[in-house]
Amino acid sequence: MPRYRLTVEYDGAPFVGWQRQGNGQTVQAVLEDAVLAFSGERVEVAGAGRTDTGVHAAGQVAHIDLLSDRFAPRAVMNAVNAYLQPLPVAVIAAEAVPDEFHARFSAIWRAYRYVIVNRGAPLALDAGRAWHIKAPLDVGAMQAGAQRLLGHHDFTSFRATHCQSKSPAKTLDLLTVSRHGERVVVEARARSFLHHQVRNMVGTLKLVGEGKWRPDDVTAALAARDRAAAGPTAPAEGLTLVAVGYPG
Amino acid sequence: MPRYRLTVEYDGAPFVGWQRQGNGQTVQAVLEDAVLAFSGERVEVAGAGRTDTGVHAAGQVAHIDLLSDRFAPRAVMNAVNAYLQPLPVAVIAAEAVPDEFHARFSAIWRAYRYVIVNRGAPLALDAGRAWHIKAPLDVGAMQAGAQRLLGHHDFTSFRATHCQSKSPAKTLDLLTVSRHGERVVVEARARSFLHHQVRNMVGTLKLVGEGKWRPDDVTAALAARDRAAAGPTAPAEGLTLVAVGYPG
Repeated sequence: MPRYRLTVEYDGAPFVGWQRQGNGQTVQAVLEDAVLAFSGERVEVAGAGRTDTGVHAAGQVAHIDLLSDRFAPRAVMNAVNAYLQPLPVAVIAAEAVPDEFHARFSAIWRAYRYVIVNRGAPLALDAGRAWHIKAPLDVGAMQAGAQRLLGHHDFTSFRATHCQSKSPAKTLDLLTVSRHGERVVVEARARSFLHHQVRNMVGTLKLVGEGKWRPDDVTAALAARDRAAAGPTAPAEGLTLVAVGYPG
Repeated sequence: MPRYRLTVEYDGAPFVGWQRQGNGQTVQAVLEDAVLAFSGERVEVAGAGRTDTGVHAAGQVAHIDLLSDRFAPRAVMNAVNAYLQPLPVAVIAAEAVPDEFHARFSAIWRAYRYVIVNRGAPLALDAGRAWHIKAPLDVGAMQAGAQRLLGHHDFTSFRATHCQSKSPAKTLDLLTVSRHGERVVVEARARSFLHHQVRNMVGTLKLVGEGKWRPDDVTAALAARDRAAAGPTAPAEGLTLVAVGYPG
């Protein structure tokens, strides 16, 4: 039974997130429908990251098993894409993988990007793809605050209250904040993240960027192990799952 | 009577171009309506470049004259933006300028960017913002072809048949083609362009990138002074008016 690894790009706007659920269109469900349409097989599309409502992906990874062995990976990609039209979802790469490969459990890192547009004027070209913040942000202070979160910690303060992860302990390998003109970009990488962790870290760093918090306050928020001690959740539309890493 | 220079960003998708006309929503018309709504004055918003249906702008420039002298440039920007909501148009900068300034006639260069996404999979995140070309493009050959068009020429072969410019002679100062992963970006700059000139040049360079034409064929197409001798018009959605230059 061949297993395929699929790399998936999507605009999160028209979806209530990745994961199939009772009401609302999800990325997982439209992919499963597209696989059924071309292969006649009802499969589960297992994804590496369960992105929330409105969150985008440039490099989500998923895998599927088909009973039929007559489809080359390229044919799977093209057929799924044909049935996905005109939804803003595309399989951008497909390859045959061993049965041991699991999109979620084999992943060794996830990388997210969060984009802020920092200007007075509303967004036109970046509408739906960035968080619009009018107050000038001190990116140096945000970067200093971000460094307080690196490493292995109990991230309870940055965890959604409904997060289903068994443990609040995670290891944050990368968190950088940089300015490119009016764009402020936050890059985050870890083996895995708690629910809303990236957005809660960004919402907290915004307070630092506005001068309402000092970097030391980020350290204190982390130490508090209390969601109420950290900043608000940044909006979904600025967040993109950029890539997922696997061994080898 | 104060004159204001406005820098305008827009997503071209919901508009039948910049210029006010009988039917369909235009960027110029919605800006004029927004100025009227906040100031009570019916003005003409004179733009530097008349972008076509579906063409985007990151830095279109326009000017307006108001009878009232009670509005600071920042107030004009914020008020116009408030009335533009929720359309994907935003005034991103405003300043007071002398009466001699004219957005169109004072401009000394216009810069456009054309984005191609060169991959097999359909577009998701770049849908509506790029030309999707599946066949692998030889960007080195495209760049070589582009250099054949630099300088002062009769660009009749790259001019829309309904172009209203008095002369087909233009001076092309910059035309570069570069690859950034799966993105192929064409940058063009000139004092002014003929109607559809950038899109017709891109459509021609695509033939070179696909190996159907050699760079020499671009030279021959230019020399023919015949629209039928050059390639097809590239789609509007890949084109963005990036910036307009003025003296000083």
